[in-house]
Amino acid sequence: MEIIHLDHQILKEEMAHAFSSKNVCEPAVHHVTSSMIQTSLRGVDSHGIHLFPHYCRAVDAGRINNNPPFTFTQTAPSVGYIDAIDAFGHHVGSDAINKACDLAAETGMAAVSVRNSTHFGAAAYFALQAAERNMIGMAFTNADALVKATGSTKAFFGTNPICFTTPLKNEEPFCLDMATSLVSWNKIKNYRREDASIPDHWAFDAEGQPTTDPHIARSLAPAGDYKGFGLGMMVDVFCAILANGFISKDLMAMYDSPIEAKRKVGHFFMVIDPTKFLPLNTFVENMQDMVDRIRKMPTLEGQEVMAPGDPEKKTMAIRLETGIPILPGIFNEFLEVSPNFKRAIK
Amino acid sequence: MEIIHLDHQILKEEMAHAFSSKNVCEPAVHHVTSSMIQTSLRGVDSHGIHLFPHYCRAVDAGRINNNPPFTFTQTAPSVGYIDAIDAFGHHVGSDAINKACDLAAETGMAAVSVRNSTHFGAAAYFALQAAERNMIGMAFTNADALVKATGSTKAFFGTNPICFTTPLKNEEPFCLDMATSLVSWNKIKNYRREDASIPDHWAFDAEGQPTTDPHIARSLAPAGDYKGFGLGMMVDVFCAILANGFISKDLMAMYDSPIEAKRKVGHFFMVIDPTKFLPLNTFVENMQDMVDRIRKMPTLEGQEVMAPGDPEKKTMAIRLETGIPILPGIFNEFLEVSPNFKRAIK
Repeated sequence: MEIIHLDHQILKEEMAHAFSSKNVCEPAVHHVTSSMIQTSLRGVDSHGIHLFPHYCRAVDAGRINNNPPFTFTQTAPSVGYIDAIDAFGHHVGSDAINKACDLAAETGMAAVSVRNSTHFGAAAYFALQAAERNMIGMAFTNADALVKATGSTKAFFGTNPICFTTPLKNEEPFCLDMATSLVSWNKIKNYRREDASIPDHWAFDAEGQPTTDPHIARSLAPAGDYKGFGLGMMVDVFCAILANGFISKDLMAMYDSPIEAKRKVGHFFMVIDPTKFLPLNTFVENMQDMVDRIRKMPTLEGQEVMAPGDPEKKTMAIRLETGIPILPGIFNEFLEVSPNFKRAIK
Repeated sequence: MEIIHLDHQILKEEMAHAFSSKNVCEPAVHHVTSSMIQTSLRGVDSHGIHLFPHYCRAVDAGRINNNPPFTFTQTAPSVGYIDAIDAFGHHVGSDAINKACDLAAETGMAAVSVRNSTHFGAAAYFALQAAERNMIGMAFTNADALVKATGSTKAFFGTNPICFTTPLKNEEPFCLDMATSLVSWNKIKNYRREDASIPDHWAFDAEGQPTTDPHIARSLAPAGDYKGFGLGMMVDVFCAILANGFISKDLMAMYDSPIEAKRKVGHFFMVIDPTKFLPLNTFVENMQDMVDRIRKMPTLEGQEVMAPGDPEKKTMAIRLETGIPILPGIFNEFLEVSPNFKRAIK
């Protein structure tokens, strides 16, 4: 299968056109397409444009509300919540973290909880919006159970990611965006597609035994054993318990449940205004210095030292030139939505 | 070497007496002794009473200020900082997280940064104080570089811990307290003492190569590879960059630097008031339900499923009865401070 490369700007236009023709409201169209393009440019293929056909089906089936009249309810000077009414997670999440930035600019730090939402794509999309406003951004979401509980045969928490960003002085923001599992479920699916063995410490079968066969893998190892499990629990406290919503274990799977079913995912966004602690210039200079020093660490032979987020920056620089790669089989699903996607082929 | 068991109440009295005779101020005496006793009862021996002789030397040498006139500077409704003036970390950290609780009760969420501090013991001591006030508590500290940077031969960040607590309905608070390294440095030291081999994925030698020899181990693996490294960086942003202080790489080692040297450690405390999101009863009931369900997960043969913090609760129940165990060699250092410590032997 030869890889197809797509021009990100034309692709974005066509995706926006498709969503608009489904009466998806304008800000939702903006955020879901911006998020998918940014995420694919950053090389995080699992959370980028690959999701477009799924999102189309979810809008058609009513899982995602195409025009939800959600509003922010402030409950104290630094906190509040949004009932998303099944909005695109990308839309409601952007409103939420920008509201948190507004509050943090006044009070120094703020948090906004989102309940009754849908898949929000990559957490980085939100936390980067805070960093672009010169804030420290944090974004979290829960997800259906996939990470095996230590000592158990089964999964309890989802891959429940943690994203953390800050502005830097001389370049795009610092961005750590990590699942609390050791590897993503998408990696397992890639090995399935290639019918290859996975390393023996990545995943477990239905009985909770380590497996190298991706086809029988049913749960993932947490990152750093019980530590990743504990961090996944912290994320569910933020996203589910504070939202009085479903914890990972009770969330329906994104793909394997009826497409019309509303999933009621929860998100959580935290923002700190660094200027309430030190001058912004000092903050971004000291951040830049730390990142630069990490990159200059003495290296193991044949290796390089990167700061978190550096691989994504490198991929983005390449893909802005070469386009976003996609397998023909997946691109066919785009063409089923509209033949106009052919315009995007580079 | 036969293990000695110590009565925790008498031990606390004698440690308090020793510090008071060194003119350590009353609240510092209270917090440092309460922290060491609680931490040893919870089974975290590396951060409990073992540190008493070191703290005595650090007070005598002036590394720790026995009576620092630190004050809280509020810079916005939800945030502020304390210049610790080299206080006991246990003392200034307790004031900081309680101040964060006061602010969060008004604004919903708050953070307090501490600069120019000293070792603060176990992060759990602070976050548990927030949970006992029905808040979600988070505590962080930086530490001298010990965790190897991925791709490098050397360490960059410290074991920079993350602690997260919440109240529960029917029992002591939920508490996740984890270093961002895969294992603690103390584990390496225990293997040194017993001259035993360590697993090959725990630590690295001076050239950054994996080693099973604890004597030549110079750096630790991060928890979950680059993820633990990234989380350690997040902790340094909170504790060092926001405090305009030393990052891990620039901090002097706790033991291997001159005892009179002031280390200028940074801490960070965050608090969320859950009642600004949902009723307290609902919050603690849903937390308890989640913890109970984790414990009832189907188990692998011969194993049990525990929530984070459960091992510490079990150890505490035992040690409240049997006393705190200590090796005779370490206890001799207590007797050098005062022969009255003999009173504590059970």
